[in-house]
Amino acid sequence: MTPGNLNRFFTPLVLCLVSASVTLDSTCVFADEPARPAVKVLVAYHSLSGNTERMAEAVVEGAKGLPDTTVVLKRVGQVTAEDLFSSDAIIIGSPVYWSNMSGEVKTFFDNWQFKFGVFPEFKMKNKIGAAFATGGQVSSGKEVTMLTILAAMLGNQMIVVSGGGAFGASATTEGDSPGIDKKELADAQALGRRVAEVAAMLRPAPKH
Amino acid sequence: MTPGNLNRFFTPLVLCLVSASVTLDSTCVFADEPARPAVKVLVAYHSLSGNTERMAEAVVEGAKGLPDTTVVLKRVGQVTAEDLFSSDAIIIGSPVYWSNMSGEVKTFFDNWQFKFGVFPEFKMKNKIGAAFATGGQVSSGKEVTMLTILAAMLGNQMIVVSGGGAFGASATTEGDSPGIDKKELADAQALGRRVAEVAAMLRPAPKH
Amino acid sequence: MTPGNLNRFFTPLVLCLVSASVTLDSTCVFADEPARPAVKVLVAYHSLSGNTERMAEAVVEGAKGLPDTTVVLKRVGQVTAEDLFSSDAIIIGSPVYWSNMSGEVKTFFDNWQFKFGVFPEFKMKNKIGAAFATGGQVSSGKEVTMLTILAAMLGNQMIVVSGGGAFGASATTEGDSPGIDKKELADAQALGRRVAEVAAMLRPAPKH
Amino acid sequence: MTPGNLNRFFTPLVLCLVSASVTLDSTCVFADEPARPAVKVLVAYHSLSGNTERMAEAVVEGAKGLPDTTVVLKRVGQVTAEDLFSSDAIIIGSPVYWSNMSGEVKTFFDNWQFKFGVFPEFKMKNKIGAAFATGGQVSSGKEVTMLTILAAMLGNQMIVVSGGGAFGASATTEGDSPGIDKKELADAQALGRRVAEVAAMLRPAPKH
Repeated sequence: MTPGNLNRFFTPLVLCLVSASVTLDSTCVFADEPARPAVKVLVAYHSLSGNTERMAEAVVEGAKGLPDTTVVLKRVGQVTAEDLFSSDAIIIGSPVYWSNMSGEVKTFFDNWQFKFGVFPEFKMKNKIGAAFATGGQVSSGKEVTMLTILAAMLGNQMIVVSGGGAFGASATTEGDSPGIDKKELADAQALGRRVAEVAAMLRPAPKH
Repeated sequence: MTPGNLNRFFTPLVLCLVSASVTLDSTCVFADEPARPAVKVLVAYHSLSGNTERMAEAVVEGAKGLPDTTVVLKRVGQVTAEDLFSSDAIIIGSPVYWSNMSGEVKTFFDNWQFKFGVFPEFKMKNKIGAAFATGGQVSSGKEVTMLTILAAMLGNQMIVVSGGGAFGASATTEGDSPGIDKKELADAQALGRRVAEVAAMLRPAPKH
Repeated sequence: MTPGNLNRFFTPLVLCLVSASVTLDSTCVFADEPARPAVKVLVAYHSLSGNTERMAEAVVEGAKGLPDTTVVLKRVGQVTAEDLFSSDAIIIGSPVYWSNMSGEVKTFFDNWQFKFGVFPEFKMKNKIGAAFATGGQVSSGKEVTMLTILAAMLGNQMIVVSGGGAFGASATTEGDSPGIDKKELADAQALGRRVAEVAAMLRPAPKH
Repeated sequence: MTPGNLNRFFTPLVLCLVSASVTLDSTCVFADEPARPAVKVLVAYHSLSGNTERMAEAVVEGAKGLPDTTVVLKRVGQVTAEDLFSSDAIIIGSPVYWSNMSGEVKTFFDNWQFKFGVFPEFKMKNKIGAAFATGGQVSSGKEVTMLTILAAMLGNQMIVVSGGGAFGASATTEGDSPGIDKKELADAQALGRRVAEVAAMLRPAPKH
C-alpha cells in the first residue's frame, strides 16, 4: 500500500456520541460518504471529422452517470497540467492514422514529460487510465491505438482498464455503418461508466 | 461504483457497546483491520530453463512483503478454478517463444474459458492483473509477451498494472548478463509488491 | 543480395544457337519461364467453429488464382517439416482467443523450433509470411492476433506482407453479420492473391 | 505478380550480334547488370539526444555495403515527397517516448497522407519497410515502437522485414551500457544491409 493511500482505510469517521444518561442512547454517524471528494474524470481526444468527438461525448455521458463524478472534456491540445494532475482518471481517444493513434495524441503524451514534467516522480501514478478509438476499417489499427494508449499509461504507472470492448470503446466509421452508430455510442458510454466506477473504488482519501 | 463494491465503504464494523450505566462508558471497536481478509495473489508461470521460475519466485517475495498478503505460486498447468477465482490478483509469467508468450501460457488463458468457464459472466472482472517475461534477446518479444498477457486480462475486464518496468518485470537471459541478474530479480520483486499494493487498495469487502 | 538469390538474375537461360552458315540465322531461346518452379504457398489454420476454416479456404482460392502457384491447406497440427521448408510463403490463420492467437496456433509456432528446428539457421528466412484471423467482436484481438503472427514470422527473418486489410484478412463472426460474409471472404481471397504475387516477385532460382 | 513487375523477368537484355560471316562468331552481351538501376534506400529518423541519429548513421553504413545501393539519410521533418516515392526501401527510426514512437515520427507517418497523399492509390505499395528504435530501458517500448512503425507500413501495403533483431535494430541507451554500444551499432548495420538485400531481390525493372 502506498503511503498516500494508507489513510483511506481509516476514512470512515465514526463519531460515537454516547449520552451519559440512564437511557440507552447511542448515535454512530458514519461520516464517510459526505467526506469523500467527487471522482474527477478527464476525457481528452483528437478529432478532425467529428467521429472521435462524438465518441468522447458519449464517454462523458457514461462517466457522469455515476454519482459524485465530475467530468472534464477537452481536446488534447487544450489539456493543462492542472487538468492532468487533478484528475483521478484519464480517458483518451484518438482516430486511427496509419495503424496507430494520431500524431496529435502522441504529441500530447510526449508533452506529459516535455510540458508537464510527469517523470521522474511518476506524477500520474495510480490514476485510472482507459482508451477509445475510431477508424475507417474494422481491423486496421483501432486495437493498436487503444493498446498503445494503454501502454503509454502503464509506462506512467497508471492503473489501466478496458470497457465497452476488450481494450476500450471503438467505432468503425466507414463501410456498412458509417459514422458512429448506436451500439458504438453505447460502448463509449459503458467505457465512461466503467472508468468512473473503478476510479471510485480506488478513490483516495480526501486531501486535507 | 459496482454494487458488489458498495459495501466496502461500510466494512469498518463499528461495534458501539454502550453501557447503560451512569458512568460514561463507551467502547467503539474498529473491527475493520482484523476483519479484512488477506489479499490473495496468484503467481502462475511456465518455465523450461528455470529462468522464468526464478523470476516468479522473486515476484512472490515482493508480494509477500506486504502485510496481509497470501501468495500462491503455481505452474500454469497446475492452476485450478479455485486458485483462479479465489485470487484478488493474478500475475502471469512466460518465456518468450517466437515473439510472444509460450504455447503453454496461451493455452492456460484459453482454458480460462474451456476449463474454467469465465465467460459470459466475466468471472475475473475487477481482479488485478500483471505480467512478467524472460527472453534471450533484449528486444525480441518480452514487451509483446507482457502486453498480450495484459491484453488477455483486459479482455476479461481485469484491472491491469505494470511494475518493475513499463509493462511488467522482465529479464534478458542471454548476452552480457546470462540468466537472471540482481536488477532483474529486484524488478520482479517490485512487480510483486506493486500488484499486492494495488490489490489492497481495491480489496473488496469480506465475503461473509 | 544473399548468395542464395544471386543466381536469379542470371536464370534467364539464353541459348544462342548461331548457325555458321552464310545465311544470317540466329535463334535466342529465352528458357526462363519454363524453368521457373511453381510458387508454393502453405495455408495453415486452427478452427473449432469452422469460421477460420472458411477464411482459410478463401485464402487458398485467392492464392490459386495466380498462375504457377501450388497451394497446400492444412490444420496447424498436421503441418510437417516438409510442408514448412518446401513452401515459398506461409499464411497462418487463427481464431481470437482472449485477445491473441489460439494456444493451438501458438504451440504450432513453438514447434517450429521444438519439432522442426528452424533455429539457429533461420531456416524460414526470406519466405513470405502473412496472417488472417476471426473473432467474435470487432476490436477484441483480431489485430493483435495478426500482428503477433507477423511478429513471430519477423523473428524468423521472414518477409511479411498484409493483404485484404491493414494487417491481413479478418472476419467478425458475431453481431450484425454472423459467420463469414462476402466481403470477408473477398478479403481472404485478396490476401491469398497478394501473398502469391509477392512470393512470385521474390521467387528464387530453381533448385536443381 | 503485379503488372508492374512482370517486366523484370525479361530485363536481362540479350544482344546477340551475329556476324554473317563464315566463321562462327557470336557475341552475346548480357546487358542485365548495367541496366539495373541502383536500389534507393531512405533512412529517416527523429533524434533529440543524438542516440537515434547514431543508429541511423550505422543503418546507412550497412545499406551502403551493398553494391548498387544509394542511401539517403534525413530527419523525418526534412523528407520530401520525392524522397519517399523515389525510394525502393524506407527504414524509419524513433526514440521511445512513452512506450511508442515519438510524436514527430508519428506526425511524419500522418503526413504520408496529409502532405504526400499516398492514399487511396497506395503509392508506397511494394516498397520495403523496416524500423529501428532507441530507448532508455530494456523493455519499455522499443518493441512497440518498431512494431507500430511496421504496422503503419503494412497499412500502406509495404513489404516488411526485420534485421539486426527480431523486429529491427534497437539500442538501450541508459543503464549498464549508456548510449549506443558496438553491438547495437552492428545490429543497425545489419538492418541496413538486410533491407538493401531484400530491396535488391525485389527491385523492379528499370523505369525508362
